[in-house]
Amino acid sequence: MREAGMSASRDNIGNLRGRYEGEPGTSRTLLIGSHLDSVRDAGKYDGPLGVLVAIAAVQAIHDRAVRLPFAIEVVGFADEEGLRFGTPYLGSKALAGAFDQADRARIDSGGMTMADAIRAFGGDPQRIAEDRWNGGDLLGYFEVHIEQGPVLEGRGLPVGVVSAIAGQSRFELTFTGEAAHAGTTPMDRRKDALVAASVFVQAVDGHAAELEGLVATVGQLTVQPGAANVVPGEVTLSLDVRHSNDADRLHASQLLLDVAEKIADHRGIALTTRRISENSTVPCSPPFTSILAHAVEDRGHTAIELASGAGHDAVVMAGLTEIAMLFVRCKGGISHNPAESVAEADVAVALDVLGRFLELMAAEP
Amino acid sequence: MREAGMSASRDNIGNLRGRYEGEPGTSRTLLIGSHLDSVRDAGKYDGPLGVLVAIAAVQAIHDRAVRLPFAIEVVGFADEEGLRFGTPYLGSKALAGAFDQADRARIDSGGMTMADAIRAFGGDPQRIAEDRWNGGDLLGYFEVHIEQGPVLEGRGLPVGVVSAIAGQSRFELTFTGEAAHAGTTPMDRRKDALVAASVFVQAVDGHAAELEGLVATVGQLTVQPGAANVVPGEVTLSLDVRHSNDADRLHASQLLLDVAEKIADHRGIALTTRRISENSTVPCSPPFTSILAHAVEDRGHTAIELASGAGHDAVVMAGLTEIAMLFVRCKGGISHNPAESVAEADVAVALDVLGRFLELMAAEP
Repeated sequence: MREAGMSASRDNIGNLRGRYEGEPGTSRTLLIGSHLDSVRDAGKYDGPLGVLVAIAAVQAIHDRAVRLPFAIEVVGFADEEGLRFGTPYLGSKALAGAFDQADRARIDSGGMTMADAIRAFGGDPQRIAEDRWNGGDLLGYFEVHIEQGPVLEGRGLPVGVVSAIAGQSRFELTFTGEAAHAGTTPMDRRKDALVAASVFVQAVDGHAAELEGLVATVGQLTVQPGAANVVPGEVTLSLDVRHSNDADRLHASQLLLDVAEKIADHRGIALTTRRISENSTVPCSPPFTSILAHAVEDRGHTAIELASGAGHDAVVMAGLTEIAMLFVRCKGGISHNPAESVAEADVAVALDVLGRFLELMAAEP
Repeated sequence: MREAGMSASRDNIGNLRGRYEGEPGTSRTLLIGSHLDSVRDAGKYDGPLGVLVAIAAVQAIHDRAVRLPFAIEVVGFADEEGLRFGTPYLGSKALAGAFDQADRARIDSGGMTMADAIRAFGGDPQRIAEDRWNGGDLLGYFEVHIEQGPVLEGRGLPVGVVSAIAGQSRFELTFTGEAAHAGTTPMDRRKDALVAASVFVQAVDGHAAELEGLVATVGQLTVQPGAANVVPGEVTLSLDVRHSNDADRLHASQLLLDVAEKIADHRGIALTTRRISENSTVPCSPPFTSILAHAVEDRGHTAIELASGAGHDAVVMAGLTEIAMLFVRCKGGISHNPAESVAEADVAVALDVLGRFLELMAAEP
């Protein structure tokens, strides 16, 4: 950041912030960033790519010794994934003023509190509220991120403009039948929780395939007692439902819960359902996104809009300012995996588009 | 055992053996027993009931100061369930001369070897071969056990004569698809291992219901990576298939493996199949079982024959001598569960039948 002409600092939650000043007298700032952390056994691009592209864009301006009519602040967010303390977006929440102070008491798997973890790298957990943006007028927040899906690859495009970050409903369902001896219990006397759950898994897959843009997933499933010679008595599973249209998501979620109820009823099995979380779709800023689409086209690429099925720091930043996001094509849609791969040429396109975007922003009244 | 007139001893593997001598000069022995151990979180009857009924039967003879034309040896078998060291029938294998000496090197979850566990209660792991039956002519092995299934309850009968112990095939199947982001991977681009596995779970349930006497169970199922927001990449599951007719069991097993292959092929998912074990049906001794059926009828009950879906020490003892088994009705077919329940009146019937069985055996030439 310093080599690119920025003043660099770290805040209390651990965000790295680099500031490239604008023309003298301007009180406006454009934030550009993404996150620095990864999941375990992850790839190299989910997060850091967006930070590096932002730094490179500033570097290009700095190399030309140009000042824009707004400052740029590049943010490398701390802990977007939320694995260590079980809650995501720690860095962006702090910057957006949405950090929950109670989270400081959360403990990691080694028994360390978040407060102690913050102290360990030199942050002050008592002063996180001071990390909230206080630098004057914000133009918006812009984020470059790998797509983590196969849409751009399928369309043969290096980049895409994000229209919205899809809302998400998460549930935990427990089917409770009757554990029984696998050798002595005739098939017609069983209340097999796994057979019921497997009907549900298929229903989720089948219903989701019917509605354009809907994704629904059973990603976790545990069987109790879980012995080869015991008929499953209880199955607990996760249900994750996403759609960029909130009404469609809510409707699909309810439909799937109703289906689960019917499956359980039909088999004389008990069902309990717990809502884990419910997040509405966060639309990207239409004017901001429109400028981004122009930048893509100005650089000779087709500008398609696509919804993000994954969450991003931009979701949290939308509570503070306007947001826009640019997706970069990734190989096979693979992410959260060491095989995560992005073509250098596509990164060059993203950088080129970001440069043009900054020019267009600078030309705005 | 001593109070019932027996000489009692413990052998090296941990079997409790109580001997009630027969008429002077007889070299014949009838073994009667079951196992002393339980699974974790078990009931009170699976195993110990058969040992106690045997002791009570000897007690009744002893109380009348009678000697039969054969000795009775009551055996309380050690470790039939095989949970601690992952291999069952330790006690009956030792008595039948089928103990695998290599098993002494197996370790429990705490890292202790079987050899050390044997030493810890005073056994000598070097001398297990000496536990093999060496007491002269055997008439056979008789075992009383709870049914662990719902057949006798369904028929309204206190006891039933076991015709055979059903053969069992066990497999491990792994469906390998592609882990992917649950938010960004469209439904038609997924290779969801859990969806494939759930089709298989239903196929197992459906096919098993079609053939009388067949039971097939998926009791274990684990999902990798097993996160709510990740499309399952790999599912490993167990398949347990049992039928008292070996040909039917082998045919059904092959059919289900073929179905798994078709499901995987159809979905572009890889499948690996591993045969874990293959046990043939062990028939009970027809003449011995016929005497038992007479004993049941002589005591005023309908004598039905039923196959055992569960394994028993009798399976191993069949390698040494003739076997017969009497099942006692249990409530709701529930076993391996603290709710396991047997009516006192049914135990009285079992004891009564065993007494009559011994009379009939004594009257045999």
